[in-house]
Amino acid sequence: MNIIPGELLAQINSPADLRKFKEDDLIQICNELRQYIVDIVSVKGGHFGASLGTVELSVALHYAFNTPSDQLVWDVGHQAYGHKLLTGRREVFHTNRVYGGISGFPKRSESEYDTFGVGHSSTSISAALGMAVASRVKGDAEKQHIAVIGDGALTGGMAFEGLNNAGSEKNNMLVILNDNCMSIDPNVGALKEYLTDITTSPTYNKVKDEVWNLLGKISKFGPNAQAIVQKMENAIKSAVLQQSNLFESFNFRYFGPVDGHDVNRLVQVMNDLKHIPGPKLLHVLTVKGKGYKLAEEDQTLWHAPGLFNKDTGEILKSPKKGPEPPKYQDVFGHTIVELAKENKKIVGVTPAMPSGCSLNIMMKEIPDRAFDVGICEQHAVTFSAGMATQGLIPFCNIYSTFMQRAYDQVIHDVAIQNLHVIFCLDRGGVAGADGPTHHGAYDIAYMRCIPNMIVAAPMNEHELRNLMFTAMETPAPFSIRYPRGNGVLVDWRNSMQKIEIGKGRVVREGNDIAILSIGHIGNIAANAITDLVKKGVDAAHYDMRFVKPLDEALLHEIFKNHSKVITVEDGCVQGGFGSAILEFMADNGYSAQVRRLGMPDKVVEHGSQPELWAECGYDEVAIMETAFQLLGIKETVVSY
Amino acid sequence: MNIIPGELLAQINSPADLRKFKEDDLIQICNELRQYIVDIVSVKGGHFGASLGTVELSVALHYAFNTPSDQLVWDVGHQAYGHKLLTGRREVFHTNRVYGGISGFPKRSESEYDTFGVGHSSTSISAALGMAVASRVKGDAEKQHIAVIGDGALTGGMAFEGLNNAGSEKNNMLVILNDNCMSIDPNVGALKEYLTDITTSPTYNKVKDEVWNLLGKISKFGPNAQAIVQKMENAIKSAVLQQSNLFESFNFRYFGPVDGHDVNRLVQVMNDLKHIPGPKLLHVLTVKGKGYKLAEEDQTLWHAPGLFNKDTGEILKSPKKGPEPPKYQDVFGHTIVELAKENKKIVGVTPAMPSGCSLNIMMKEIPDRAFDVGICEQHAVTFSAGMATQGLIPFCNIYSTFMQRAYDQVIHDVAIQNLHVIFCLDRGGVAGADGPTHHGAYDIAYMRCIPNMIVAAPMNEHELRNLMFTAMETPAPFSIRYPRGNGVLVDWRNSMQKIEIGKGRVVREGNDIAILSIGHIGNIAANAITDLVKKGVDAAHYDMRFVKPLDEALLHEIFKNHSKVITVEDGCVQGGFGSAILEFMADNGYSAQVRRLGMPDKVVEHGSQPELWAECGYDEVAIMETAFQLLGIKETVVSY
Repeated sequence: MNIIPGELLAQINSPADLRKFKEDDLIQICNELRQYIVDIVSVKGGHFGASLGTVELSVALHYAFNTPSDQLVWDVGHQAYGHKLLTGRREVFHTNRVYGGISGFPKRSESEYDTFGVGHSSTSISAALGMAVASRVKGDAEKQHIAVIGDGALTGGMAFEGLNNAGSEKNNMLVILNDNCMSIDPNVGALKEYLTDITTSPTYNKVKDEVWNLLGKISKFGPNAQAIVQKMENAIKSAVLQQSNLFESFNFRYFGPVDGHDVNRLVQVMNDLKHIPGPKLLHVLTVKGKGYKLAEEDQTLWHAPGLFNKDTGEILKSPKKGPEPPKYQDVFGHTIVELAKENKKIVGVTPAMPSGCSLNIMMKEIPDRAFDVGICEQHAVTFSAGMATQGLIPFCNIYSTFMQRAYDQVIHDVAIQNLHVIFCLDRGGVAGADGPTHHGAYDIAYMRCIPNMIVAAPMNEHELRNLMFTAMETPAPFSIRYPRGNGVLVDWRNSMQKIEIGKGRVVREGNDIAILSIGHIGNIAANAITDLVKKGVDAAHYDMRFVKPLDEALLHEIFKNHSKVITVEDGCVQGGFGSAILEFMADNGYSAQVRRLGMPDKVVEHGSQPELWAECGYDEVAIMETAFQLLGIKETVVSY
Repeated sequence: MNIIPGELLAQINSPADLRKFKEDDLIQICNELRQYIVDIVSVKGGHFGASLGTVELSVALHYAFNTPSDQLVWDVGHQAYGHKLLTGRREVFHTNRVYGGISGFPKRSESEYDTFGVGHSSTSISAALGMAVASRVKGDAEKQHIAVIGDGALTGGMAFEGLNNAGSEKNNMLVILNDNCMSIDPNVGALKEYLTDITTSPTYNKVKDEVWNLLGKISKFGPNAQAIVQKMENAIKSAVLQQSNLFESFNFRYFGPVDGHDVNRLVQVMNDLKHIPGPKLLHVLTVKGKGYKLAEEDQTLWHAPGLFNKDTGEILKSPKKGPEPPKYQDVFGHTIVELAKENKKIVGVTPAMPSGCSLNIMMKEIPDRAFDVGICEQHAVTFSAGMATQGLIPFCNIYSTFMQRAYDQVIHDVAIQNLHVIFCLDRGGVAGADGPTHHGAYDIAYMRCIPNMIVAAPMNEHELRNLMFTAMETPAPFSIRYPRGNGVLVDWRNSMQKIEIGKGRVVREGNDIAILSIGHIGNIAANAITDLVKKGVDAAHYDMRFVKPLDEALLHEIFKNHSKVITVEDGCVQGGFGSAILEFMADNGYSAQVRRLGMPDKVVEHGSQPELWAECGYDEVAIMETAFQLLGIKETVVSY
């Protein structure tokens, strides 16, 4: 489908083109840009509300600043569609988030305007500061460095680390706080309340103005009053001016709040700020979903709604052929409620992903024991550890890729102390369209080297429920990873059972070759095995369930009976599940031909999960081909 | 040596004993406690200045609060010697940091008074909040939850994540900010300046008082003035009261600053604060090293001075027998200066460890290009990435154990973008007396699964210098790890050479068995091999230098010629260097008997490096024994 840009937008193939327009044209350009985003996302999908909210910001930034020489860093980056459309990618934007197409996030390899690759939150201030310091080191005093960060991303501690460091040096640096009161879900925490306070009238700046005006008036009441006012003015100066604002506490000059949808005002302010040296923060108020009413009204739903009819607002769902297996995240969401109703010690923790991980179900049903702590994985883990010391049983749900943020806390605060914290790692394995920043590639490798940690992954919904039940009953650090998307069982509500720790499952006995899988990808392996059997290959299938501890009894049996083995995992092969199997072999003196299938040692780009499994060589076809190769069978596998 | 406690201290074997004393006795108790710390640390070693600064705090906390029922969390924990001495560990304190003895940090398994194990910084607020929420969930309204955090630790973003979350809920929680303007080195960043601002007179609270007093006076100037004052009061209320303090921005009630060495005042304030619900912060000013003049004057030197003559203040060094090999950290420190003088693109980054990693040498010689960014590993890495995008070459030096804090940034901001950032991981391998929180156990495993990352470790000083030179010349993410302590070469200043990426070294050819080592532990392996040769075992030794990429040519040669192989690494065996070798074997169809020596899959406690190498089975004796076992030689190895 060809999306037709508006008259002015059609002339803009780079920010240089944009800057040829008069300021009076900017409103129309914004309208056209917004319309283009609605037009294309409604038919191609992707993130929606965030980019609608930053239309004016995007236009103003590229208009006021000399990009790409000036360095513009978007935090998280799902709000940067407008930026992409203004920087030469309109014609390819229909490939957004598609296999082989452009990325849904800013990406250095894609454009010189994408100064820093993003995806995870709260990195922009640190990155922009690095750029600003580099300019200083290189003696370039003209270059501007701008970080655009949302109020949600600001709750990540790393953003404060950046502020603290940036405020201590006189670098040419502007932080734009894009304050829309939202993460994917409504933003939480004290900071949110603070930002609300200073943005409700009388605003902070108005207060300051008012105080000075009043002081001026009072000073007319005679010399006595003047002396008092003098003292008072000094006191207020140090109280109000020096320390009256969170950001000024960090030595940032604070400006705002300003209306983030008044593009002309934004341009004017940005032009002014260019001439003010040192670290400064511009507080911009925007509305997520701005200009598309439904998106303004339900911001979580319209964060990434999928395809929709732009005229009616109807969100298009692919027609169901019948009952479908649930998403793993929903199995988690319902199961924790089921467990928590029985066991009062259970609490749930999510760092700003209640709808993404479905903890919102528990937040609704048992609000006292379900916590959205904001975008702060580190805190989420140690907060869970603190609760565990008091005998509670926290299920701390963090996407595999985001758990990288809390790696030290997992080791230092949970594992070393052997605390009973259960980590549910959603989005384990390739994440799909979000791409390399979001793949849950490394968790098996990085978790299994941690002492005391039990590392498990369910092959289906029943297994997930059983593992959650088992984790509840096992007082140790326990990690359960599962992928994005749907399971395989329509009838998923089993009666939960405790699994023996480290016990694997025999899915199919067989004599020719053994296939060992971990987690959901085992279903792909099972499909491959069904086809292998049809081709006369008697393949055995073992769902190991635990990466640590391994089922040594089962492995002894396998290696006594098999000389050809394939391991399959939806994660990195370097140090992953397959390596754990190799370690068992070495430690026990087995030799067998082993092929480890999983994510290779390279950056895997975006695409659908099946596309990426295929590319990485562990989809159904690849598993079959590997089996044929190992067995020396000349057989061509036709893709299904 | 038997340290004699003072008269009152001798009667205190638990906080309950302390609480039997009258408030009037507290000053003497503090004096005796301080003296005891001086007496014992001077002859037994350990952290010094920090605990001297918290003597009064420790006494006041255990006097005012009902420990261990009330939950007291010490951040970092090296300041908790007073706490340990008051909580039943005076008699065993001479075993502090000794193999088999008590830990230098609070540790749950050691005492019920140690509510949360620490070592890394900035965790206390999150942990205490978890405890406070648990009490709320359990309906215990009486229990107090106290986090004691230094101003240095507060620069870690995680502390802000905790504040942000804590401030949004009404939990019974007290944060004590122990403000001494120091990390190990002087604290840095905007926050430090802010804290200095509010602690210099007129203090924040005095300002508030003054404003109100003056408003009272002004209101006497007639009705006109009164109306104005009314408006002004409202304006000031919202400006000064609501938003005038960083911590109040986070919904914490702020109290202080108070003199942290006035024990009676501290007790009084703490008793008052017990009755104020919700999150509150008490700002306490202390002096690191308080009461020991030399330690007050040179706080970095006296952070952990080693043994000293307590009367003269002379720091005792073990007599040198002659020229000694340098510490690896100093080789780094001098070499980066040498490189940076030639190459203007080089910058150095340390998160608050300038003296620990010896970047202080560069900070002195090339201050414009050497950055101490504060305790914030996440920021340090992404800040480095930002500089790399502008063509600078950052050497980002972070201890292996602390790099866990920046794991996501290493992946997301450096490796995925393939940026030229060089990570120098100091303290790789067992850390010695600091124990499990500080061991650099996991870096080989967690680094080698990251795409684009080059993972290397030098066997000696020349190799470290060559690797640093090589990393400078190689535009890719590059990780170089080396251990705590000294190298092996007195004459360490070689002329640096570029090493081919992934190229290992043949240290000794041999026919009976191949020993593959990575890093400094290779010297221990070399010693073992010398002795093996004496015993008639013709052992080959390969210093692989790179974990990734592996020297495949060399490995093909090794596995073609050897059926018995030992891998040796000072790091976890799960997923580590040995596993990488197993992966190579599996991928290339080799079978050999392989023994992987390294840190086992358990929490390794504290002790000297040789003690821990022995315990973990990779000291000289263990390597020899493993060789004999593999070769089927019955030989008893006598410890040297």
